[in-house]
Amino acid sequence: MAARGGRAVAARDNGPQRTVVATGDGLTMQRIPARIGDLLAAVETPALVLDLDVFEHNLDLMANVVRGSGLALRPHAKAHKSPDIAKAQLARGAVGICCQKVDEAAVFVAAGIADVLVTNEIVAPAKIARLARLAQTATVGVLVDDVRVVADLSAAAVQAGGTLHAYVEIDVGSHRCGVAPGEPALALARAIVGSRGLRFRGLHAYHGAAQHLRAPQERRAAIGEASRLAGRTRVLIEAAGIPCPVITGAGTGTWQCERDSHVYTELQPGSYVFMDADYGRNALAPDEHAFEQSLYVLATVMSTPTLERAVVDAGLKALAFDSGPPLVHVARGLTYVKGSDEHGVLDVDPAQAQPQLGERVWLIPGHCDPTVNLYDWIVGMRGERVECVWPVAARGAVG
Amino acid sequence: MAARGGRAVAARDNGPQRTVVATGDGLTMQRIPARIGDLLAAVETPALVLDLDVFEHNLDLMANVVRGSGLALRPHAKAHKSPDIAKAQLARGAVGICCQKVDEAAVFVAAGIADVLVTNEIVAPAKIARLARLAQTATVGVLVDDVRVVADLSAAAVQAGGTLHAYVEIDVGSHRCGVAPGEPALALARAIVGSRGLRFRGLHAYHGAAQHLRAPQERRAAIGEASRLAGRTRVLIEAAGIPCPVITGAGTGTWQCERDSHVYTELQPGSYVFMDADYGRNALAPDEHAFEQSLYVLATVMSTPTLERAVVDAGLKALAFDSGPPLVHVARGLTYVKGSDEHGVLDVDPAQAQPQLGERVWLIPGHCDPTVNLYDWIVGMRGERVECVWPVAARGAVG
Repeated sequence: MAARGGRAVAARDNGPQRTVVATGDGLTMQRIPARIGDLLAAVETPALVLDLDVFEHNLDLMANVVRGSGLALRPHAKAHKSPDIAKAQLARGAVGICCQKVDEAAVFVAAGIADVLVTNEIVAPAKIARLARLAQTATVGVLVDDVRVVADLSAAAVQAGGTLHAYVEIDVGSHRCGVAPGEPALALARAIVGSRGLRFRGLHAYHGAAQHLRAPQERRAAIGEASRLAGRTRVLIEAAGIPCPVITGAGTGTWQCERDSHVYTELQPGSYVFMDADYGRNALAPDEHAFEQSLYVLATVMSTPTLERAVVDAGLKALAFDSGPPLVHVARGLTYVKGSDEHGVLDVDPAQAQPQLGERVWLIPGHCDPTVNLYDWIVGMRGERVECVWPVAARGAVG
Repeated sequence: MAARGGRAVAARDNGPQRTVVATGDGLTMQRIPARIGDLLAAVETPALVLDLDVFEHNLDLMANVVRGSGLALRPHAKAHKSPDIAKAQLARGAVGICCQKVDEAAVFVAAGIADVLVTNEIVAPAKIARLARLAQTATVGVLVDDVRVVADLSAAAVQAGGTLHAYVEIDVGSHRCGVAPGEPALALARAIVGSRGLRFRGLHAYHGAAQHLRAPQERRAAIGEASRLAGRTRVLIEAAGIPCPVITGAGTGTWQCERDSHVYTELQPGSYVFMDADYGRNALAPDEHAFEQSLYVLATVMSTPTLERAVVDAGLKALAFDSGPPLVHVARGLTYVKGSDEHGVLDVDPAQAQPQLGERVWLIPGHCDPTVNLYDWIVGMRGERVECVWPVAARGAVG
């Protein structure tokens, strides 16, 4: 009954293409929905499909523009949870990656990623201990917004015999975690500097709420204020004799604003590799670079009960709905109007061709990050052919 | 780079309680967040936690009431995705289980469940073939709402040397899948009866949209109409000389209405084992049985940046938000107001005690089914102690 010990075994399903990985605990990794060389028609649905040409365009665009700016690029791996994608980012010059959870960081360090910043507060003693052990083999950073955690981080780092890089998180407008800019940040920096096993690296100044402000001038105004607060805090810290080399932050919606700020030194965009329907609703200024949609949920029409309605096999467990339903790519009169657990109901424009039973439908997820987290595999396609199948290795790494 | 073959290995983490299961593909099953005998304080968060006393109360209540009615109980396993829970339901008299996906059915058949009804249309040839192979070792049912699929199902069943139980899905008000009641259903029943390898069992008449109608009289009216449509269709089919022994449907919101219908013969509730915030918003009539909340996401306060705000470590990847944010159990002035990928922001009533850093918060998911699908493990607690850790074996079984 209980799950323990987990000696894992692998077995082939009856079908030639299907690998089932079952563990001694009764756990089953889900079937790989395609294999290398498959044509599109052989990909089973729902599947998380990546258009590799577009994906590489996005990777290259971000890498090239940031390299030209002189800032560091540390992409956020919470979006993709994939060591394969992290390595593609590092190969293009990224200085490291960001994660949100210790369990995510463990997956990436185990995969050989040498520099991981956990852009989050870690307070549970067991997690702090695991984080400190990761710093035995990689450069590991973590955020702090409460002085009571500094001693725990320090003790764990000393016990593990390594050094944790510590960043003070300041609230620059998102009103989530973070101390207020200014004196509270200086007080925390002092506490870190005075603690064995910790190395103060700078400020985390991420403005999450600004990422989806629709108008470019709203985003620029929000990051202008964030930059002012972060810059003022750095001056205060450095005036106290504490070097503050890094100001890190930014996301896919605002990264050009931080890049131009003369304050931020490091950018953390994540979604740009994939994009999603919600980012697609941001209006762009003429000087803003546009990333293209590379990520889809491939679905199949499983029922055509009326001329006005078709049903696909991808619902709440195949797509995240926090930012609204998916869009239908090349819609031809199809609108995804309602998701239930395992179904998606499409409205069909009667003036256009009725979708056929078994037909494939490409869906653009409303929100890429939590959608990726629903899948074990990313199917990478080059044109009509499967070129790679990448494990979403940090899927479900919530701890 | 690509995932293939999947020879899996298991490794122990440094901590004594933690099992990491890694596959040769680079996949990692997530850490088990607790082990048997642990006290609550040792459970790592976010964790999906089941109050076993309440859970068993829910199991018993449904089993006893349905047994007394003379109807069959076939609980829906899409809610829990757990063979352990399915076995607990069968032990209390359930005739079998429902699934929504072939991959789910494969997990349950592999776990020894002998009777599985896939309450969904299956159209992809590879999936139909796998479904037919499952019928070699279990009683396997499937829905049909399109005559073009009947021949494929028949051919696959014949090739696998078994029999698939086929049910005609009729649309009784949800306007999702299903043919119209009456003549279209009769036509499909005739096609099934005339097909080798298929056994016509009856009608699937599930009214999903009725489950969350808030007023009991609304739910009763909706199921009254569904019953009328299903009963009329059965009369038509039997008048044509085709036995139609089963009318199956119902969910946690309406099951007493179907039970009292004199039409339905089998009930399929799923969420009753757990319950959630959305079901909690249904008003109950005096004669309706109340199930209790047994499922929680256990979270930890990771930041207390202001007196009016606390942040927990459970966001969009730890909770489904399609039915709204979670509720805080025993709220003491806490309201979960905003989820982002890995954070939950709580409003704090300043008139009550400020939550402490590291404090545990029990969250009632907005929607239980897609929340369970985010986790690899269900931690079963008896009082303050972990009694079992069940794998969510069909987690991610989208295909």
